[in-house]
Amino acid sequence: MTICPLVHLNGTLMPLSEAHISPLDRGFMFAHAAYEVTAVYGGRFVDLEGHIARLERTLAGIAIPDPHTPEGWANLHRELIAHNDLVEGLVYLQVTGGAFDARDFAGPERFTPTVFAYADTKPLIGAQARDGIGAVFIEDSRWKRRDMKTTQLLSQALAYRSARAMGADTALMVEDGFVTEAASANAWIVTKDGEIITRDLTPSILSGITRAGVMGLREAGGFTITERAFTPEEAVNATEIFTSSAGAMVAPVVMLEGAPVGDGRPGPVTRRVQRLYYEAMGADVAEAAPFVFDRD
Amino acid sequence: MTICPLVHLNGTLMPLSEAHISPLDRGFMFAHAAYEVTAVYGGRFVDLEGHIARLERTLAGIAIPDPHTPEGWANLHRELIAHNDLVEGLVYLQVTGGAFDARDFAGPERFTPTVFAYADTKPLIGAQARDGIGAVFIEDSRWKRRDMKTTQLLSQALAYRSARAMGADTALMVEDGFVTEAASANAWIVTKDGEIITRDLTPSILSGITRAGVMGLREAGGFTITERAFTPEEAVNATEIFTSSAGAMVAPVVMLEGAPVGDGRPGPVTRRVQRLYYEAMGADVAEAAPFVFDRD
Repeated sequence: MTICPLVHLNGTLMPLSEAHISPLDRGFMFAHAAYEVTAVYGGRFVDLEGHIARLERTLAGIAIPDPHTPEGWANLHRELIAHNDLVEGLVYLQVTGGAFDARDFAGPERFTPTVFAYADTKPLIGAQARDGIGAVFIEDSRWKRRDMKTTQLLSQALAYRSARAMGADTALMVEDGFVTEAASANAWIVTKDGEIITRDLTPSILSGITRAGVMGLREAGGFTITERAFTPEEAVNATEIFTSSAGAMVAPVVMLEGAPVGDGRPGPVTRRVQRLYYEAMGADVAEAAPFVFDRD
Repeated sequence: MTICPLVHLNGTLMPLSEAHISPLDRGFMFAHAAYEVTAVYGGRFVDLEGHIARLERTLAGIAIPDPHTPEGWANLHRELIAHNDLVEGLVYLQVTGGAFDARDFAGPERFTPTVFAYADTKPLIGAQARDGIGAVFIEDSRWKRRDMKTTQLLSQALAYRSARAMGADTALMVEDGFVTEAASANAWIVTKDGEIITRDLTPSILSGITRAGVMGLREAGGFTITERAFTPEEAVNATEIFTSSAGAMVAPVVMLEGAPVGDGRPGPVTRRVQRLYYEAMGADVAEAAPFVFDRD
């Protein structure tokens, strides 16, 4: 990951070193902020409309007036990648309740948002997509409104650190006996009968844009996808596991709690999901992701 | 509330307008930060040691290396009020995981913290202490580690906004059929038999420094204090309710869900708690809080 030289702050493009946030910003003091991470592949955004729509839902849910129209948000994104010549990577966008002259939980009647965004050069189809990742189970300690994409991300940060300390790359978070999500991605398992299971959409999980993209491949892939909560035991017994997120797209989970998932290599269902997902975003798969054909 | 001219940022006193936070700071992006608010009365801190000890516990719990000794933290606090001539008010302190050159949930092996603090001129014994406040019940949506004082405060910010929209000042937050806390304070009820009840210390609530101060008045006040979870119904039937926090100290709750608590005026037990608490911090109560004698 390399942050591109020009970042966006409140309507202006500037070097990162000149982008200053007030320590009284509500994004700094109260985690009062929405964010989105949108993938860029071949110079084009992957489902930007979906990310903007979710941003608008989060802003409405946390009482921040939306400072832009959908077209305004799209222009902000396009301008950022154009001025930084970004072809592949991510755009990160954060919108906070803004800064005030005093610390006050409730804040004023109407907030004046802080808008910050940057572009990040990064290969989207990398080693983890090819080789897979390891996961461990970690108690999900997040707040209850995970359907809103806010910067209340301390649980996730700590989950990643714990996972790393245990030699893994991510966590499957567990609450009340069921898996909710991976540390910053939706989680999917494949049963021995080839059924794909992912948690249904409630405030317990984020409504992933990449999750929606994978759901959209149901017909083309001939997938049977069931949306319901699954247990850690079902994950342990799954023949395949994968995660979905804008940043890592579709990532095979090949180790769980130190034991191989299936035969310890990315499985055929995951490979088919990857191939269709990459094709849908315009990738030349034979070139960009030849590994997806391994198990065909 | 008026923020004093000089604030502290990473070892330097400077005007607030010169205090800049990077948008890549983990306090801004991940709510990866601890904070404390310590009262200053008559030019002296109220239980600064307790606040520093809790800060150290929070930092340890969220993997931020402690940049100062307890004496170093105390000096930082003392310097801030000395240079701003603060006699009465609060010191706010926030310590984050620091800024990096990329957004990464797990972050580096060892963080280099950002330390920000400011002093705030404010009368500590004000109209709310005298006349009381109104509260409503709101679902507690916070994360599960409320024993750590972090900036994951969006639930509280939204709770205050909802309370205000319902014509109240604060919320009693409810989870699984029991009151946890007020929106940013511990909650206490008094039964018709004069028993004081406040929730026992678990990760479900913050271990309030002012709560500990009130517990310490048990003997002097002849109070019977039981530490256990209580229900919203018990709160509705209580003869008195009060909250405790560093900022508002001991605040009588005189309205709950639009109905008077007891006779709708601060009750005798609350007044005795206030009087003893104010005396313990060195106040001339007859001068500073004559109202506490109203119901003796």
